[in-house]
Amino acid sequence: MTPRPLAPSVFLALLAGGRGTRFWPLSRQSLPKQFLPLGGEKTLLQQTRERFAPLVAAERTFVIARAEYEGLIRSQLPELPPENVLVEPSPRDTAPAIGLAALEARRRAPDALLIVSPSDHRVSDPEAFRAAVTAAVLRAGEGGLGTLGVEPDRAATSFGYLRTGPAASDGARPVERFVEKPDQETARRFLDEGNYLWNAGLFVFRVAEFFQALAKADPGFAAGLEALESARESGRENEAEAAWARLPATSLDYALMERASGVWTIPLKAGWDDVGTWAAAEKPLSRDEEGNASAPDEEGGAVFTNSSNSSVFLGGGRERGPLPVLVGVEDLIVVSTRDVVLVCRRDRVEEVRRAVEELRRRGRDELL
Amino acid sequence: MTPRPLAPSVFLALLAGGRGTRFWPLSRQSLPKQFLPLGGEKTLLQQTRERFAPLVAAERTFVIARAEYEGLIRSQLPELPPENVLVEPSPRDTAPAIGLAALEARRRAPDALLIVSPSDHRVSDPEAFRAAVTAAVLRAGEGGLGTLGVEPDRAATSFGYLRTGPAASDGARPVERFVEKPDQETARRFLDEGNYLWNAGLFVFRVAEFFQALAKADPGFAAGLEALESARESGRENEAEAAWARLPATSLDYALMERASGVWTIPLKAGWDDVGTWAAAEKPLSRDEEGNASAPDEEGGAVFTNSSNSSVFLGGGRERGPLPVLVGVEDLIVVSTRDVVLVCRRDRVEEVRRAVEELRRRGRDELL
Repeated sequence: MTPRPLAPSVFLALLAGGRGTRFWPLSRQSLPKQFLPLGGEKTLLQQTRERFAPLVAAERTFVIARAEYEGLIRSQLPELPPENVLVEPSPRDTAPAIGLAALEARRRAPDALLIVSPSDHRVSDPEAFRAAVTAAVLRAGEGGLGTLGVEPDRAATSFGYLRTGPAASDGARPVERFVEKPDQETARRFLDEGNYLWNAGLFVFRVAEFFQALAKADPGFAAGLEALESARESGRENEAEAAWARLPATSLDYALMERASGVWTIPLKAGWDDVGTWAAAEKPLSRDEEGNASAPDEEGGAVFTNSSNSSVFLGGGRERGPLPVLVGVEDLIVVSTRDVVLVCRRDRVEEVRRAVEELRRRGRDELL
Repeated sequence: MTPRPLAPSVFLALLAGGRGTRFWPLSRQSLPKQFLPLGGEKTLLQQTRERFAPLVAAERTFVIARAEYEGLIRSQLPELPPENVLVEPSPRDTAPAIGLAALEARRRAPDALLIVSPSDHRVSDPEAFRAAVTAAVLRAGEGGLGTLGVEPDRAATSFGYLRTGPAASDGARPVERFVEKPDQETARRFLDEGNYLWNAGLFVFRVAEFFQALAKADPGFAAGLEALESARESGRENEAEAAWARLPATSLDYALMERASGVWTIPLKAGWDDVGTWAAAEKPLSRDEEGNASAPDEEGGAVFTNSSNSSVFLGGGRERGPLPVLVGVEDLIVVSTRDVVLVCRRDRVEEVRRAVEELRRRGRDELL
């Protein structure tokens, strides 16, 4: 099925401001996850843009991030018009970032419809993904605030959930409640009950409806966005920055979605993956007979001698590190970069953050 | 006991031409073991020179090596007169190298006495070492070809042995036979019998006696050395090089010591160590409570998080690699250099050479 481009009033906002440390030392404060290939050839941001490209043209695709990442975004997505990189005056959370994109979309088209997507996820079935997005866009044209909810295939405790009601004829389900990350038992129950979806941070709505709903859910926030816009339109940059700084640093879930009525979701079954763990990053890698993998998977990758079930990640670009040579080891994750090499047992990756804290204590901020 | 300098006719020859791969990737073809600190502050060559310094002045200390290492030697031993670095025209074995030193010593003093020492060993009790060397020098003045034989403290199979006869009043013992590296059972028997010493490659002899004995043991070799010398004295460099190239590429043990009569040894009990394994290189390192060590052992060394019994070596100088961070691992040796990082289980270090072979197959000679 060839995807059909969406209407020219449909805009896409890719959120690229995140700064996780989960993939340290491959990711850094200056090079977070969305700008890394993490096992693929293209970076997660590039993969995200490609996933949407058949639906939304570059001219109507925005990327929102702090100024620090502007250069990375321009170099990774050179096809985007420069003015489509929307710079956050200071780092906030997703709600202000999405507000910024909504203002920009409204300026371009009063009847704009906005798709919002994180830029650091992966999808193994992009056609199914685009079909769901297309369905959500059609539904959003009829009203309400939409999300795409991922059909769970396991009792995950690392995501928030959407409790949904019965599906309408177009497949959309009303969202009855946004649920925080559950414990294992609760997640198991959600899976069994069958009416819960993962909250993947994917939103679809008409921009006019977004502002109306926000004015109801958080009038101060909505007024703040309008103050920002009017300051910008009349070139009062200082005032615009002050208005930005007053916006609440909170998620769109909290500021709007959890409080709004008429929220619906289109179930998504497309091999969605938030690439939240090294295990997820390793998934696309090809392994040798002993279960070893090297990323990037190229001629001259890591040397594995009598080693098994180990994965090596080489930092890309300026962070490229020395060649890893593994001898007689098993179940390791090795990350080689220019200034840090991590050697970690596969089942102990959660403890990497403690090493990061130790480096912070040592004052080695340049390594973080 | 303050050591007394030896007579001005005593010269020291430090052999620095070796090219082992045991400590790869810390050692390289271009930077072998003798030029590395290997857990100490000073390199093994510098430690060796210091060990002898109270006995033999820099002016009478030679270092013999291939031309490739001349710069390393000059930078590590700047106190040596430049003409004391004796360059092998092409790599041979120890017999030609020692011949070169003997010729140089004879040129400087007809009654010269020569001490020959490897430059990649370690000694924990340098005073005892110097006492033994002094005893050997005194004994050599009276004649014969001398060695220092290390008193074994275990049934080692990695060294050749000297079978010795009863000690004379000065402690010297006649060497009855040079024995190849034994198997475990034989080594055990040697240790039990008590009259076997390790052959440590330490020799002491009057130079005149060396040439006489060599003329008897291998007349062609002796004649070759004289041809080399006479070509050099008259400035016929091509002829000198040709004479060098004709010398047998063999050890002094084989060319001379095993065939000569009147060979004796002074037993050495001074914490001698040939630093032949990573375990030996780790010995001087201080360990944390979990048994981890970092070399060099300095502020800002490796980070160990929930890890134990692991050792990290950072390449020195131009080979300095990224900072190793170990999380949740145990019993590893990690070597971080600019272009290679080795991750090896402690009990599998013998297999590193297989990884080196793999790199050679890949044509990555610059990493060897």
